[in-house]
Amino acid sequence: MVPPWVWQDLIRRALIEDVGAGDLTTNAIFSPESTGALLFCARQPLVSCGMAAVRETYQQLDDRVVVSVVHNDGTMVAPGDVLARISGPSRALLTGERVALNIVQRLSAIATVTRQVVRDLDGLPTLLLDTRKTTPGWRTLERWATSVGGAKNHRFNLHDAVLIKDNHIAGAGGIQAAIHAVKESVGPTVHIEIEVDRLDQIEEALAAGPAGILFDNMDVDTLRTAVFMVGGRAFTEASGGIRPDMVRAIAETGVNALSLGWLTHSAQAVDIGADWEVDDGQ
Amino acid sequence: MVPPWVWQDLIRRALIEDVGAGDLTTNAIFSPESTGALLFCARQPLVSCGMAAVRETYQQLDDRVVVSVVHNDGTMVAPGDVLARISGPSRALLTGERVALNIVQRLSAIATVTRQVVRDLDGLPTLLLDTRKTTPGWRTLERWATSVGGAKNHRFNLHDAVLIKDNHIAGAGGIQAAIHAVKESVGPTVHIEIEVDRLDQIEEALAAGPAGILFDNMDVDTLRTAVFMVGGRAFTEASGGIRPDMVRAIAETGVNALSLGWLTHSAQAVDIGADWEVDDGQ
Amino acid sequence: MVPPWVWQDLIRRALIEDVGAGDLTTNAIFSPESTGALLFCARQPLVSCGMAAVRETYQQLDDRVVVSVVHNDGTMVAPGDVLARISGPSRALLTGERVALNIVQRLSAIATVTRQVVRDLDGLPTLLLDTRKTTPGWRTLERWATSVGGAKNHRFNLHDAVLIKDNHIAGAGGIQAAIHAVKESVGPTVHIEIEVDRLDQIEEALAAGPAGILFDNMDVDTLRTAVFMVGGRAFTEASGGIRPDMVRAIAETGVNALSLGWLTHSAQAVDIGADWEVDDGQ
Amino acid sequence: MVPPWVWQDLIRRALIEDVGAGDLTTNAIFSPESTGALLFCARQPLVSCGMAAVRETYQQLDDRVVVSVVHNDGTMVAPGDVLARISGPSRALLTGERVALNIVQRLSAIATVTRQVVRDLDGLPTLLLDTRKTTPGWRTLERWATSVGGAKNHRFNLHDAVLIKDNHIAGAGGIQAAIHAVKESVGPTVHIEIEVDRLDQIEEALAAGPAGILFDNMDVDTLRTAVFMVGGRAFTEASGGIRPDMVRAIAETGVNALSLGWLTHSAQAVDIGADWEVDDGQ
Amino acid sequence: MVPPWVWQDLIRRALIEDVGAGDLTTNAIFSPESTGALLFCARQPLVSCGMAAVRETYQQLDDRVVVSVVHNDGTMVAPGDVLARISGPSRALLTGERVALNIVQRLSAIATVTRQVVRDLDGLPTLLLDTRKTTPGWRTLERWATSVGGAKNHRFNLHDAVLIKDNHIAGAGGIQAAIHAVKESVGPTVHIEIEVDRLDQIEEALAAGPAGILFDNMDVDTLRTAVFMVGGRAFTEASGGIRPDMVRAIAETGVNALSLGWLTHSAQAVDIGADWEVDDGQ
Amino acid sequence: MVPPWVWQDLIRRALIEDVGAGDLTTNAIFSPESTGALLFCARQPLVSCGMAAVRETYQQLDDRVVVSVVHNDGTMVAPGDVLARISGPSRALLTGERVALNIVQRLSAIATVTRQVVRDLDGLPTLLLDTRKTTPGWRTLERWATSVGGAKNHRFNLHDAVLIKDNHIAGAGGIQAAIHAVKESVGPTVHIEIEVDRLDQIEEALAAGPAGILFDNMDVDTLRTAVFMVGGRAFTEASGGIRPDMVRAIAETGVNALSLGWLTHSAQAVDIGADWEVDDGQ
Repeated sequence: MVPPWVWQDLIRRALIEDVGAGDLTTNAIFSPESTGALLFCARQPLVSCGMAAVRETYQQLDDRVVVSVVHNDGTMVAPGDVLARISGPSRALLTGERVALNIVQRLSAIATVTRQVVRDLDGLPTLLLDTRKTTPGWRTLERWATSVGGAKNHRFNLHDAVLIKDNHIAGAGGIQAAIHAVKESVGPTVHIEIEVDRLDQIEEALAAGPAGILFDNMDVDTLRTAVFMVGGRAFTEASGGIRPDMVRAIAETGVNALSLGWLTHSAQAVDIGADWEVDDGQ
Repeated sequence: MVPPWVWQDLIRRALIEDVGAGDLTTNAIFSPESTGALLFCARQPLVSCGMAAVRETYQQLDDRVVVSVVHNDGTMVAPGDVLARISGPSRALLTGERVALNIVQRLSAIATVTRQVVRDLDGLPTLLLDTRKTTPGWRTLERWATSVGGAKNHRFNLHDAVLIKDNHIAGAGGIQAAIHAVKESVGPTVHIEIEVDRLDQIEEALAAGPAGILFDNMDVDTLRTAVFMVGGRAFTEASGGIRPDMVRAIAETGVNALSLGWLTHSAQAVDIGADWEVDDGQ
Repeated sequence: MVPPWVWQDLIRRALIEDVGAGDLTTNAIFSPESTGALLFCARQPLVSCGMAAVRETYQQLDDRVVVSVVHNDGTMVAPGDVLARISGPSRALLTGERVALNIVQRLSAIATVTRQVVRDLDGLPTLLLDTRKTTPGWRTLERWATSVGGAKNHRFNLHDAVLIKDNHIAGAGGIQAAIHAVKESVGPTVHIEIEVDRLDQIEEALAAGPAGILFDNMDVDTLRTAVFMVGGRAFTEASGGIRPDMVRAIAETGVNALSLGWLTHSAQAVDIGADWEVDDGQ
Repeated sequence: MVPPWVWQDLIRRALIEDVGAGDLTTNAIFSPESTGALLFCARQPLVSCGMAAVRETYQQLDDRVVVSVVHNDGTMVAPGDVLARISGPSRALLTGERVALNIVQRLSAIATVTRQVVRDLDGLPTLLLDTRKTTPGWRTLERWATSVGGAKNHRFNLHDAVLIKDNHIAGAGGIQAAIHAVKESVGPTVHIEIEVDRLDQIEEALAAGPAGILFDNMDVDTLRTAVFMVGGRAFTEASGGIRPDMVRAIAETGVNALSLGWLTHSAQAVDIGADWEVDDGQ
Repeated sequence: MVPPWVWQDLIRRALIEDVGAGDLTTNAIFSPESTGALLFCARQPLVSCGMAAVRETYQQLDDRVVVSVVHNDGTMVAPGDVLARISGPSRALLTGERVALNIVQRLSAIATVTRQVVRDLDGLPTLLLDTRKTTPGWRTLERWATSVGGAKNHRFNLHDAVLIKDNHIAGAGGIQAAIHAVKESVGPTVHIEIEVDRLDQIEEALAAGPAGILFDNMDVDTLRTAVFMVGGRAFTEASGGIRPDMVRAIAETGVNALSLGWLTHSAQAVDIGADWEVDDGQ
Repeated sequence: MVPPWVWQDLIRRALIEDVGAGDLTTNAIFSPESTGALLFCARQPLVSCGMAAVRETYQQLDDRVVVSVVHNDGTMVAPGDVLARISGPSRALLTGERVALNIVQRLSAIATVTRQVVRDLDGLPTLLLDTRKTTPGWRTLERWATSVGGAKNHRFNLHDAVLIKDNHIAGAGGIQAAIHAVKESVGPTVHIEIEVDRLDQIEEALAAGPAGILFDNMDVDTLRTAVFMVGGRAFTEASGGIRPDMVRAIAETGVNALSLGWLTHSAQAVDIGADWEVDDGQ
């Protein structure tokens, strides 16, 4: 569940950006008394995500708007399905439409892509993870979208788990030195994982006792060997260069998890339309 | 040129989000005195965009970091090319890497996609325009990216130009009523454009004297007729349902401009890597 | 219509500034249970503006306060007329009085001055425009006040329309170079206007096809000639050095619009008092 | 001296408001390399105030701009005098001009009006005071302007001194009850003053020992009597309904101070121009 | 009474800090529909303070939570007493518990310590004052806590009263020069107090007419002499080095007030527990 | 290392709070040209912490101030030792003194208390941990202080690790249900710990495989049994009701860590003075 202030802050910035000093077109045409209703309709199959943003957008514009969510976050929706019905003052309905859609189309895209990958993993114990390759300012929301899609969240940021990468290893003077330095420094609740890209690094890493090993950019065969070498002595994760068509093969190596940057950095907006339902009272 | 506070605010939020209370891994391994250099390298052909974000990210982390931009915004870059060299305290270099990359990869993606469309329009007078379908919080930056790619910017938001859409026409009780209501209301510097989706709406619209007409979701033949019917009496724009492979045919109808939401809402991150250049003084 | 966050942000800053850590006088004298009512009364003829600020001020202080607006924005009010009745907890009533009055007195002053100029233009087609000479931080509100008074809004800021001034012409190396540079750069929705102060600049300007020409600081006779020379080929605007007693003569030259900085930068606060209506329940 | 963050915050908001996503005109015409200089020149006699705003505005736009202040705050300046010379990148010079001028013209107006009143008081011991009738968001700056003009500052806000007004007296059930309630409540560093509008209230007030008495809206003769009745037993202040031509007569009653809302709420912007000084290197 | 925005801002920051992107534990275990109730119970004798923070914390998390305050601020509470009952959605109850407790435990600690000192002063006219030695960001709240405990507030900050310390005296070139410089500069509502640490400074100070004299770090005998020397010609205050066991003796010297930094900088959190009251509907 | 924006934001708020619209005393007495130096001196034995706050405070007030830190964070300092020398404009030196001291005295207090506990653990492998019982708004800084004192940091907030408490267990319907619900929900990098207060809960908990078990409020003998029962199958932590004189005995039970709320919620400010060093140039 996303805390309310995350929606509030992002949407306030979004409205200031998109509405500016007022919606010239809508204010010129509609009186303050005019009312109506908008239907947000899926124009393609998708997994809904971000319906709280619809509520919050209209709450900030005019608290007389009523938002009825038909398909809560995480629902598989067919083309033509109504996601939400929004009714109230016409001015607010039209002024807020683009902000609400921009958010829902983006988050639903991420949830939809994620769900597709999760289906590819059907029947396997492999976890699907997101990454820190999120849109700056959107991390909490985009992680919500991946979790709605069926992924688990990787670390939130640089402070809540350790991931030792090649540059850290170089700086520390070796794999073991790096792991030991981290163990000296961080508290007992912090997950420690190290990234390796060659098989000969695995035993060296395991000797220092990390909680996890990330295999970076390995082909399926190498990865299978790597997982075998670890033999359950650490959590294993595959990342880097994993295209959609490789997901199942990667998972079948037995690796515990795979993490995919493109869930968040390259999901393409899903198509959702806003259809007007004229209100008699208008 | 993007005003400095736009970069400052977005990057501050991004660093708070990604660094949290400190980069556990980097701080455990590198001493405050360790120095080094990072190279941001293109791993695919791309149009660079957002290099100011690299400077600003590192300025906020540690003002001793030196950022040397090799390829300014708008440069066509080949795989392997160095976009920027960043040198200084190792801690700052590694802590800021993901934030800087997340921004540059996104903006360069938009600039790259836009440039491809502009090339499709080569030799034609047609303008390429962006839309309001941008990532909430990123409008100024994403518009910068489309302009770097070669597009012109459409209206910034709901306050700086008028676009009368179907819902507005319905609310006003007709095309002419809508245009007249707007003309009564807005100041003389405001561009007034109306969206139509049928040929029979054109004369009615022109009679009320809008500055522009947007043809929504028309096929190429209908659009050609529409442009002919307008006959230069208003600025013409095509939008909606224009796939990349349709761009040239749309433009060849003689329409003045085409606007594409997918330049911004669906550009997929370009691949840029951060390679470590070990410093002797480390 | 002013978006709600504009009132919210300005009033929050105003309350923090004026109330600080609490109203010592009021809190010492009134118990939390005491209730009452305040009447905001005009003490001079004025055009009301800013009544939303009264609601928002008291909403932020104590949501039990009830604000009944008697004369909505834009009403011509006589001395002695009640603008609004505010009832509820006495502490909130008195603590918020100065903030609410400071805002309403300023905005009503601008609306009142503007209405006087609009009356001077009675029967003429000339538009009255505001300018960017507004109080920093107050632009949206002061533009609202001029529109309430009967003016149209000029461009909001440096990003939503082009106005080429003498320094720009000098920098570009001439009138035509300046207009052409701008046309190359901005999108198709942007209004382009150029400022000239001599008659010989008019033809040169028109040749480059600007949407508007601003005549700066011309006397009435010169202006009449200038308007004649343009002959409807561009929107015409007069600005600079126009005192209240010159308004009608300027307008009678046939110029399309006149813009006046003193509507906003020099309006003198109107007199509005807050009278206490003792409540039985106090 | 105004703390730096007061200028920083107000000017940042002002630049965001006025520049938006960038100055279209200036960016189209001037290259990033072009440099020049602007002279801010008085076009009327005035007391300079707000020169720190010029520095801060340009610092925020581009830290390569050099601001040379010629006449520091508080200087009496003649028409034609240069207040400040600003040199550096042309883009920043022109983009920041209006924000800087809007601030300096307003603060100098307040300082100038105040100085005129202070001159009317020449040779008398009477203090001139400002009030809380300031532009919301501008109190610290407008108080700076009155002090630069020669006034003393009255209380900053509702938390740093007590002023018991008619509504408080009514609420407390009398003058003495009001003063006693306040004395029970506030700390020993807080100044306690009470407003009276009739002579018969004076002895009653003095009996409760306030530090000051404010005489509201009294004519000169009544005020003279009131001051005589107090006989130095409290600080005396006159306020309300004091027009410029009454200032000296009011002061000659022997009252300790007079406070004038119109110093801040009705000062009309002074005229300052920005003249371009073309730079060879442009 | 603390203005609502003070609670709102501090608690928003506190929730962002403590909840981050969501309470993992609570969200995993409780459904959104689960409800319950929490009792905040004193586990030691204390003076309650900060109950408004409980309301505000839960209002920000979920406005369906109902907070019933049993013991308003300022109540003497026994171990086992329920301070407040909080009922509603289980998720919000548990997610907000720590933030609410951290605030109430700190403010109640200050109120409790203050009340103890006030009791030591029982029967004496001596005022107890707080100081500026508060937790940065908490001044308004910690002053509220001392006033709830029975102290009076000293100056809020450096702008609302003058306290001339040894460094100021040295800078001015002497006690009288310092007082005169201040009197020239500040407005008539500002309290002027000077700090002395030797008896021979008293007459010199009094000759310049300060409103108050602060005796810094004097032992009881010296202080008694100092108070005698002042003889009522100024407000007297003792500060510095006053341990709890010295309070009564200090007060018995006849000094008007004593100010204690440790009321705020060293109060140790009181013990308050949050006990779960299982709800049938859960 | 604390990220720079954490210091920046807290100190900006602190300066706004303490300086308000300007330091009346200092500005009245010192000219802008006067310079000097301050020495921050320990008046008791302490572990220094927060020296970055001294730099940042003065940087925000006046960037001409030079701060020379003598004893970096983590140094054991004797009474009389100079912690830092601050030189530059006298106005800034005196205006910033209280804010800087309030921060350093608080953080050094926490570091000092923590160091004392760490010494009590000398020779034992037991970790000392902090808790979430920090001052709202100060968590990053107070955790920095405990780490400077020698503790390890516990989880930062509710989002970066799981701690299942009694209320969660009740809500889930048992220990195992609670752990399983969490394991279903959170990602693989999240530490999962469960709080128990009875010995019979231990086997049940271990069967569900948590990473850690927290023993709440157990006496030394029970705790020793509990640790024996766990037998290394999970990380063990003792918390609740541990007074300073019990620390060593608790640690000698063999528990892996003990966490103490009073490190942060009840540390009493250490005594640090600011001594003036008169500058010849003043």
